[in-house]
Amino acid sequence: MNNFTFYSPTEFVVGKETENQVGTLCAKYEATRVMIVYGGGSAVRSGLLDRVKVSLAASGMEMCELAGVQPNPIDTKVREGLELAHSFRPDFLLSVGGGSVIDTAKAIAVGYHYEGDFWDFYAGKAKPAKALPIGVVLTIPAAGSEGSGNSVITNTKTHVKVGIRQPMILRPKFAIMNPELTLTLPEWQTASGISDMMAHILERYLSNTPEVQIGDRLAEGMLLAIMETAERLMENPNDYDARANIMWCGTIAHNDTCSLGRVEDWNSHAMEHEISAEYDVTHGAGLAVIFPAFLQYAAKHNAHKVAQLAHRVLGIADSGNAEADALAGALKLKSWLHDTLHMPVTFAQLGIEEPDLELLNTRLHNLKGAILPGGYMPLDAQATMEIYKLAME
Amino acid sequence: MNNFTFYSPTEFVVGKETENQVGTLCAKYEATRVMIVYGGGSAVRSGLLDRVKVSLAASGMEMCELAGVQPNPIDTKVREGLELAHSFRPDFLLSVGGGSVIDTAKAIAVGYHYEGDFWDFYAGKAKPAKALPIGVVLTIPAAGSEGSGNSVITNTKTHVKVGIRQPMILRPKFAIMNPELTLTLPEWQTASGISDMMAHILERYLSNTPEVQIGDRLAEGMLLAIMETAERLMENPNDYDARANIMWCGTIAHNDTCSLGRVEDWNSHAMEHEISAEYDVTHGAGLAVIFPAFLQYAAKHNAHKVAQLAHRVLGIADSGNAEADALAGALKLKSWLHDTLHMPVTFAQLGIEEPDLELLNTRLHNLKGAILPGGYMPLDAQATMEIYKLAME
Repeated sequence: MNNFTFYSPTEFVVGKETENQVGTLCAKYEATRVMIVYGGGSAVRSGLLDRVKVSLAASGMEMCELAGVQPNPIDTKVREGLELAHSFRPDFLLSVGGGSVIDTAKAIAVGYHYEGDFWDFYAGKAKPAKALPIGVVLTIPAAGSEGSGNSVITNTKTHVKVGIRQPMILRPKFAIMNPELTLTLPEWQTASGISDMMAHILERYLSNTPEVQIGDRLAEGMLLAIMETAERLMENPNDYDARANIMWCGTIAHNDTCSLGRVEDWNSHAMEHEISAEYDVTHGAGLAVIFPAFLQYAAKHNAHKVAQLAHRVLGIADSGNAEADALAGALKLKSWLHDTLHMPVTFAQLGIEEPDLELLNTRLHNLKGAILPGGYMPLDAQATMEIYKLAME
Repeated sequence: MNNFTFYSPTEFVVGKETENQVGTLCAKYEATRVMIVYGGGSAVRSGLLDRVKVSLAASGMEMCELAGVQPNPIDTKVREGLELAHSFRPDFLLSVGGGSVIDTAKAIAVGYHYEGDFWDFYAGKAKPAKALPIGVVLTIPAAGSEGSGNSVITNTKTHVKVGIRQPMILRPKFAIMNPELTLTLPEWQTASGISDMMAHILERYLSNTPEVQIGDRLAEGMLLAIMETAERLMENPNDYDARANIMWCGTIAHNDTCSLGRVEDWNSHAMEHEISAEYDVTHGAGLAVIFPAFLQYAAKHNAHKVAQLAHRVLGIADSGNAEADALAGALKLKSWLHDTLHMPVTFAQLGIEEPDLELLNTRLHNLKGAILPGGYMPLDAQATMEIYKLAME
């Protein structure tokens, strides 16, 4: 086990009607001027935004609003938010929404105190020293951004989609998580979110670092809980308890609960970011296409951890042949994503009949270098092309 | 799943040589005057205390020392610490040791700002509003106090051993956890710690709250990881990675990672506290005696969760008969504690040939009421007596 720091200071307030505590929680974390960041109309139509504003007003907060954050959030919206922030001068950012909204708020949070352009942080040209504090009212469990120090933004000019990871300054102060708010999520969003959180776990689980038994067992437990409650949820979207389990899994999938002393992989995410940046597909759906392909490739080239996953999570009996078991596990996960979650598992099912694999692969390696490092398998351009091709089938 | 708040703001710094960061971490959390709390001679003899002081001095800290905290920490030591604190006026308490040392520091932390006697908090007569900040250099993984808001103190006059739980103010700011510091722990202390952390998980796992799949799977994962690495550790106490896994398990066993929306039990802990308060035995060893007896009783009266434990963690095949499987699981855990951990599993093996069960049981119910509530099974005096008697066999 490698040395590690685990720091997850967010106060998670989980359960029914918890959004009514938002004013009290903002006050507890010393907010007085709150900039509310949200996305499309659903937070407005459902009455959530009104309830949030009532609660904030009751705690004496001044407010301003940044609306219209879109999925796969973009740099131009961040700049619009920064302009608003510089005129309103908030001391707290409140995200009401899912990962895109939270990631946008995080970009504003670090950009606010910075003289240059906020994109410098995402381009790796500068490191943020401080950030405005953030709170979250979560409406879509998927990205895990409510508990992480990460933010991913797409550059609209270059089509580059990249992230920053600043756990010491960017983890939200609090995250209000009412599973009732997710009861009306359409199947597509529910399933994409589940695919995304499973990928967050697998990116950590797939690692060559030895002797990480506790992290492995926690990751396996999360995957088992997700799969058993997801099956119920696909049958009955109104199942509150299944929603609650899934919602919490989305958080701990990404707050490093199962990272713990290992070198993580993240090559599948890098490969998917090229797809969603170019074709603007849902990130979780893109992952459902890429991850099984990645696991099929891994079964051939570095089977051991995929075989462990197959044995402990996917119900594949140990045949003594790690490569065969790993491949069986990869295919079983692929079937499960398709048959149970109704996710696309090929480019065609994702709606991209003729993907420009050369373009994706070239951009990927231009951004990440000739070899994607990865804690489980370094991947050169030939390897990533082979995985993209496996995702065609 | 019930509503819940999860708040674990401690910065855990885990790995080799991490104790040398203690000065930097104290400074980060705005310490300037540090009161060091520690136990017996081992922190001194090993040179750890000196290394800690060198690091603190390098960060410009003023220091004072409270030495001599004993296992099963006592009120009189807390009062001695409070006296020292009122003269030194620290702005930070640093615990160097295990659970007893941390729990003593926590009692000082809440007592410091209080006009009355600190015991009021433990007697339930008052609630602490604030506490001095605490840091930890952990030397014994067991109590989980480095990540919890709990503190348990024994009253030397009344022999009452009780705890407070104040997660919002009593969780340490940081916990430095170097598994190397635990390599020299004698087998008895290692095994007692493992028994204690397993009990912390089981007290949470054993709950009648339905629909807590994710918490169950996390708890089961922790137990599996503990059992597989504990087996290695009993063979080879110098196994760094096994020590590292166990050390982290001790923390997350008790920082509520696996609590999550359920009513916990804690009746076994209450029953054990009577034993260690009267006979001054090691808490974890007392739990190894009580817990299997409790599970045997539970197998007869509320089998379902013990059966799930038996199936998912203890390798008992599902026979379709929950009661039989639960009993088989209870007995298998009892054998494992005895044969693998070399723990006592009866009063006699604990060195108490003729325990005064009437005295223990009377004190227990005087303290806790006619019926111990418990999230899994309420226990009246007849039930607890039956469990104490099962612990004779």
